[in-house]
Amino acid sequence: MQFSIQAFDPQSKARTGVITTDHGLIETPIFMPVGTAGTVKAVHQRELVEDVRAEIILGNTYHLYLRPGLDILEKAGGLHRFNGWQRPILTDSGGYQVYSLSGTRKIKEEGVTFKSHIDGSKHIFSPEGVMDIQRTIGADIIMAFDECTPYPCDYGYARKSMEMTHRWLTRCIDRFDATEPKYGYRQTLFPIVQGSTYRDLRRQSAEFVAEQQRDGNAIGGLAVGEPAEEMYGMIEHVNAILPSDKPRYLMGVGTPENILEAIALGVDMFDCVMPTRNARHGILFTTEGVINIKNEKWKDDFSPLDKALGGYAGTFYSKAYLRHLIKSEEILGAQIASLQNLTFYLWLVKQARYQINTGNFTNWKDNMTKKLMQRL
Amino acid sequence: MQFSIQAFDPQSKARTGVITTDHGLIETPIFMPVGTAGTVKAVHQRELVEDVRAEIILGNTYHLYLRPGLDILEKAGGLHRFNGWQRPILTDSGGYQVYSLSGTRKIKEEGVTFKSHIDGSKHIFSPEGVMDIQRTIGADIIMAFDECTPYPCDYGYARKSMEMTHRWLTRCIDRFDATEPKYGYRQTLFPIVQGSTYRDLRRQSAEFVAEQQRDGNAIGGLAVGEPAEEMYGMIEHVNAILPSDKPRYLMGVGTPENILEAIALGVDMFDCVMPTRNARHGILFTTEGVINIKNEKWKDDFSPLDKALGGYAGTFYSKAYLRHLIKSEEILGAQIASLQNLTFYLWLVKQARYQINTGNFTNWKDNMTKKLMQRL
Repeated sequence: MQFSIQAFDPQSKARTGVITTDHGLIETPIFMPVGTAGTVKAVHQRELVEDVRAEIILGNTYHLYLRPGLDILEKAGGLHRFNGWQRPILTDSGGYQVYSLSGTRKIKEEGVTFKSHIDGSKHIFSPEGVMDIQRTIGADIIMAFDECTPYPCDYGYARKSMEMTHRWLTRCIDRFDATEPKYGYRQTLFPIVQGSTYRDLRRQSAEFVAEQQRDGNAIGGLAVGEPAEEMYGMIEHVNAILPSDKPRYLMGVGTPENILEAIALGVDMFDCVMPTRNARHGILFTTEGVINIKNEKWKDDFSPLDKALGGYAGTFYSKAYLRHLIKSEEILGAQIASLQNLTFYLWLVKQARYQINTGNFTNWKDNMTKKLMQRL
Repeated sequence: MQFSIQAFDPQSKARTGVITTDHGLIETPIFMPVGTAGTVKAVHQRELVEDVRAEIILGNTYHLYLRPGLDILEKAGGLHRFNGWQRPILTDSGGYQVYSLSGTRKIKEEGVTFKSHIDGSKHIFSPEGVMDIQRTIGADIIMAFDECTPYPCDYGYARKSMEMTHRWLTRCIDRFDATEPKYGYRQTLFPIVQGSTYRDLRRQSAEFVAEQQRDGNAIGGLAVGEPAEEMYGMIEHVNAILPSDKPRYLMGVGTPENILEAIALGVDMFDCVMPTRNARHGILFTTEGVINIKNEKWKDDFSPLDKALGGYAGTFYSKAYLRHLIKSEEILGAQIASLQNLTFYLWLVKQARYQINTGNFTNWKDNMTKKLMQRL
């Protein structure tokens, strides 16, 4: 994997670049739609390419390991061949899901014992095992196995957890470097900075991660409930330590405002379930602001969802029709809203990219943020 | 509405034709995807046009009356403008839904009192009211308000019900003919033959319906549990009486075999929830036979769903991937399976049309039926 930087914003830390993988190019800053179980919920693969214009999607180690299972994925020749998505894929390591979905789990030095949320069966994830699993899934970008601390988190726990995450990272790297890709294309491993909201822990963690000199680096453990200002402070602090010639990936973030702020702080890659999850609950992201389509006021608004954005969902379907579908719990409602929100998120990062390249990012961001925070 | 017959099959009663409406042509025999609440479940409007190649879809009076409601539909300028479907729409009268969905309903001469399945609110459907509702929905083809008898149904009830359906038909026609379309394009009314599985009642009903000399005629009250042979017998019996120069619509039917048999008996139009409802449960209709995608045998079958059919769903996605999605209850599973099944159903009637036009229908039907009844 290569990363080349194209332009810097003169008034912030924002930059644009290109990541090269064996499945094609990714132009940064980029948003990656989340395809937890090998599908971006309610969106066809051709829609991801043609309408959303996604350049890379996520898969989830925990979900894919449980279902369809590694035997199926290996027989298929990896996730790309299984689901027909031919562009790059990043898999998160499953750490977060083990903590959040599994009722009973035990974290030990060796790894994590957990029960499947599907059938209650018992499993163990270790740093080595999770590397092997992601090798088999066939992700282009593999994430280290970490512990994502909750918020708030007391200092003692945050420090211990971070230290274990660092030891696990060493084991991940050892295993990753000792193994080969299975399907003929290259894979790379991103380490993850932890340390909760403690500046000294974040510094230690960023330094440890930076030392590993991998192709890209991630910031985890943020957007878990802390105030946005605290999150931005941590990102700024960490980004000053992480190498600037490597892509920086802020995990699980976030709202359109969060993304623009983080771009200004030098983040290159984002993922979040928000555009698809909120879509299913009738929350729309548009170029004019946020819409709760269930509100009474949209019931006889026959204007397109988001004419200025363009795209199929935004121009073909009306607010009144989508409101009817969402209120009626029709599948098409989830389809339209998901398509709109993902199209919007990709538009947003592409606009940011354009504005950085043309030197107008900071001005544009300030205006856009005001607009995007409006509730229509 | 005009109907012109193009060709007759020499060995059966099958025929091909063209229905002309103000929203475009319908080439018969035709299958009409069911869009109960103004959406064909899990399928985008452009997919209906470009992939399924649907020529007409159904809406449901009961559902649309309750939600979004007539005020919204009238403000939108009718259902076509509300949901963006620019080709013809047929609405069923809601009679069937009143009986099947509403826990407590009272059928009287005046009409039916029922409670909404959504909020329990009380409503009355009368023949006159249901004509007005369908005028407001803006369907190109409006169905008479009838009582659909269950199976089995004793002779006395079937006769009384049929007689009331006939009186209701007269009231429907009077009201329809005394009112005007609301949106500048023409609408037409189809009466419905009832009479359960009794030959004398079906004859009486078909004669009464034929006498009305409307643009097209429907056969209701079949495919409600009776053996297929009994259904075919009734269709043959009724079709000998219904005028042959008007389209014949067999309501709510059915399996691919049912459709081919009914085409051979002179039926021109079909609708059924089967392709979309079964899709959501993982039952696929393909050119090779029926597939229950949940079966273990498909878990590592990476071949396309239905290569011979062509189309996006059939060629892009594999059986193993769809199995994974359906087992995981992912929305995309419903989307893919619905697209496949509807594409297949439209292909089936278009193939039938081609075979009738080229004089090979009966042979083709016999071979195809054997294939389609296979469980793969």
